[in-house]
Amino acid sequence: MSTSRFLSVSLLLLGTVSAEEKLSNFAPAPYRAGPWVLSTRGEIWPKPQIQQSSSSFFSINPDTFQFKLGPELIECEIVQTALPRFFERVFPKFSTNSRTPKQELTNAIDQEYLGGLDHVRVELVGTRANCETHPYFGMIESYNITIGGGDKNVITSESVWGLLKGLESFSQLVYSSSFPSQINETTIQDYPRFPHRGFMVDSSRHFLQMKMLKQTLDILEMNKINVFHWHLVDDQSFPYQSMKFPNLSLLGAYQPYTHTYSPTDVEEIIEFARLRGIRVIPEFDTPGHTQSWELGQPGVLTQCYTDDGHPDGSKGPMDPSNESLFDFLTDLFQELSAVFPDNYVHLGGDEVDTSCWESNPHITEFMAHLNITGEYRKLESYHVERVLGIVDHLAKKSTPIVWEEVFDNGDNISKDTLVHATKAGFRVLLSSPFYLNRIAYGTDWVDMYKACIWGEWVDSVNLVTRAWPRGCAFAERFWSDSSVKDEAKAAPRLQEQECRMLQRGYRVNPIVGPNFCPVDWDSIL
Amino acid sequence: MSTSRFLSVSLLLLGTVSAEEKLSNFAPAPYRAGPWVLSTRGEIWPKPQIQQSSSSFFSINPDTFQFKLGPELIECEIVQTALPRFFERVFPKFSTNSRTPKQELTNAIDQEYLGGLDHVRVELVGTRANCETHPYFGMIESYNITIGGGDKNVITSESVWGLLKGLESFSQLVYSSSFPSQINETTIQDYPRFPHRGFMVDSSRHFLQMKMLKQTLDILEMNKINVFHWHLVDDQSFPYQSMKFPNLSLLGAYQPYTHTYSPTDVEEIIEFARLRGIRVIPEFDTPGHTQSWELGQPGVLTQCYTDDGHPDGSKGPMDPSNESLFDFLTDLFQELSAVFPDNYVHLGGDEVDTSCWESNPHITEFMAHLNITGEYRKLESYHVERVLGIVDHLAKKSTPIVWEEVFDNGDNISKDTLVHATKAGFRVLLSSPFYLNRIAYGTDWVDMYKACIWGEWVDSVNLVTRAWPRGCAFAERFWSDSSVKDEAKAAPRLQEQECRMLQRGYRVNPIVGPNFCPVDWDSIL
Repeated sequence: MSTSRFLSVSLLLLGTVSAEEKLSNFAPAPYRAGPWVLSTRGEIWPKPQIQQSSSSFFSINPDTFQFKLGPELIECEIVQTALPRFFERVFPKFSTNSRTPKQELTNAIDQEYLGGLDHVRVELVGTRANCETHPYFGMIESYNITIGGGDKNVITSESVWGLLKGLESFSQLVYSSSFPSQINETTIQDYPRFPHRGFMVDSSRHFLQMKMLKQTLDILEMNKINVFHWHLVDDQSFPYQSMKFPNLSLLGAYQPYTHTYSPTDVEEIIEFARLRGIRVIPEFDTPGHTQSWELGQPGVLTQCYTDDGHPDGSKGPMDPSNESLFDFLTDLFQELSAVFPDNYVHLGGDEVDTSCWESNPHITEFMAHLNITGEYRKLESYHVERVLGIVDHLAKKSTPIVWEEVFDNGDNISKDTLVHATKAGFRVLLSSPFYLNRIAYGTDWVDMYKACIWGEWVDSVNLVTRAWPRGCAFAERFWSDSSVKDEAKAAPRLQEQECRMLQRGYRVNPIVGPNFCPVDWDSIL
Repeated sequence: MSTSRFLSVSLLLLGTVSAEEKLSNFAPAPYRAGPWVLSTRGEIWPKPQIQQSSSSFFSINPDTFQFKLGPELIECEIVQTALPRFFERVFPKFSTNSRTPKQELTNAIDQEYLGGLDHVRVELVGTRANCETHPYFGMIESYNITIGGGDKNVITSESVWGLLKGLESFSQLVYSSSFPSQINETTIQDYPRFPHRGFMVDSSRHFLQMKMLKQTLDILEMNKINVFHWHLVDDQSFPYQSMKFPNLSLLGAYQPYTHTYSPTDVEEIIEFARLRGIRVIPEFDTPGHTQSWELGQPGVLTQCYTDDGHPDGSKGPMDPSNESLFDFLTDLFQELSAVFPDNYVHLGGDEVDTSCWESNPHITEFMAHLNITGEYRKLESYHVERVLGIVDHLAKKSTPIVWEEVFDNGDNISKDTLVHATKAGFRVLLSSPFYLNRIAYGTDWVDMYKACIWGEWVDSVNLVTRAWPRGCAFAERFWSDSSVKDEAKAAPRLQEQECRMLQRGYRVNPIVGPNFCPVDWDSIL
């Protein structure tokens, strides 16, 4: 198999988030009246790289405030469609004028009042600037903000993606106190630590409603996460409605009409994400985790045999001895390549149980033919290489992503492949320790600068509630400077981020112990 | 202190739910298409003591079905007000006609069709029967159901509380399949294993909205739990609005107007619970866990001192050397006794940190005077005995409940007291291992035949989601026969209970791994 660019597994350099940065436990002080942690006001999550703010502030009023676009943005869709969204975030609909914590009422803030702020300019700057339409790996996301009063209020970036990040930061600078809304004198220069900041959801173990996927995308944008890794199908169900192979979801979904993603649904998610600067990377895991495929596409899986050589009725991983499997996968990945515009596709490759292969005489024969008798990890590598080959020959060039195990099994993959990959500069995305669904008691966000939410115990009810604001911690580790790791300093900002998300209408969990949010609960619950 | 009935800590004999009944882990089969667990249809949670059902069934139609009350119930408020509620549970509003799991479609159920069921009679029977108005400890809760077609459809009990339980069980017998709604031929004789089946919520660490408290009460009724233990106040905040001492909440709540329970709110909760056969037992924990009390009632807490004998500005537990403390508590508990109709009151008594007492010279002097120098647990017992004395002398006789530690400290309580209590037949409520908020990954419901949900990490967003259906496991342990403890057998029924709660509009968690519910998500999310 000549496969050229594959196993370039993708980004996120994990070594930097390692033992030396291990966070100590967040230690609250329980024997005290009031919240354990006092919320900040107008602090940004994730923390910007460079920020100067003074305690002098402007008032900002929804009746008069406006974004003023530079002429280069007048017909620029990404920014134009963002403005109503960010206006609502600047003035969140579910916030209340609840009294601020008593401890802060004595601040003599009004001497520092600088007057009203009625606009902020939004400008695309620099020689590289153009109005891009689709987010991609390596897009520019840096931006600057100046809030100085008069004419000196401006958000700039070399890209629309940076402007989206700047608009989000601007919306977070605005807070409520004795005035309904205020914003401090501020300058910011900000850019991400890592270019690929992903969040995975699993819509196979439980089907996830469109509404909750969209809420998730909104929240990803608020936390400057730029990749939505969609683990669409797995053993349990196949909710992706394929145009070429409709039986896959008709027979493989939990329910063929209410628990599937139609082509329109998928398009809607991709579009919703695109407008927020978020890439959608689908995952179609093979050869394992594919039990649900067999229902709509009989024959793709391996028939398992009893000890005395009879089919036992159960099925194992995909059957790489079946050449028509790869014809089918070629057709499917061609479709996926057309449906999902991103240049990356996730091919899975994890947790392959080889016992069924071991029981099957055709597999045994096939492996003898390949001269890999008894080396089942090499059969797995054979399968993965075939799939990588398929993806490599698509009309649209796609970079494949696989789970870590394919990398771990590297010694069984043909040496050419591995060497080639290494020479090409092996980029690694390591997500296995970052499982948001593994929730722990107490201050669990501290260990959560990370990002997969598997679906065994997560459905539409608790997707948002379980993942957030816990996921904010990982978002900050992957956006902010590596030195931003002091949990005691982070906690007050995280409390603000929690309340901010509630005020915007997302049902997120309490995150830093006993506390309260100035939020209109009746509208949210 | 002559305290007569106190320390009769209350019910629930924990020894029976012990090591010998330790549940093995629920072991799913992940390598299979479809849900890990197939839901039952029309099974009751918690499992009735005695039930016979056949596979023959009736159809049941919302347009024609009615409850027919016996004449003895015509003016009986508890049952009359229950009927609309149970009608909605028989025909849940958020259920869908989603296709049932494919594995079951081959059942040849229509040969077993017995025709339509257009009514069920509801009758109060027996010589002890009368239309009671307030639930109480030891109330009759047993009931019988016959679903036999024609005139042979009846729910009977000797009490209205039993009828409520019977109506709930009846509503759960109804399920959807190829017909919109059906119910199997069934007879049930049911009664609780324990008379006091409690659930504790904590509205101090996070304020809990009325809506979520009411949802909780609805869910308690669905799971045949009959005590709502309301941990109203604690260190962090004092949301109970006292009529005699309004400053307690004005200054001690997180927010004096939006984060408090007014007298009307409290009355509404008690009434909502009463109509569901649920007793409301308030807890006002002393002498520890009282930091928030000091804000509105300065002087009730102990002033802490530095090593060199100066007040250090912080406060410890209540100050039992201050005689006016007990005057204040007398007034407060008089008010509470009038507000909360139940004959039980929870007085707390847990986790007293004595270091502040040790630092305070007035406390030292006071203890010398009491001849208990250096024995701080005896000072704690002194405080608890004083409070028990207050409760014992209220106009309305109340049985106090305290946390286990007061019992553990028993050797420091006057011998008379303890001996008296033991002779009186020490009833023990043991809830300390039953903390629902300590959520674990995976099949955590298995360890959860139990019931406290503390508020450090629980607010209005996740109260229902975090506690349910996990809490169902404890509900079954405390209602059903002690032999009902096989988690593999329970899982399919628990899956049905999860979907049932969703269909009724409550946002509960997924509980038995990959699965789906026939529910109108769009209306619930």
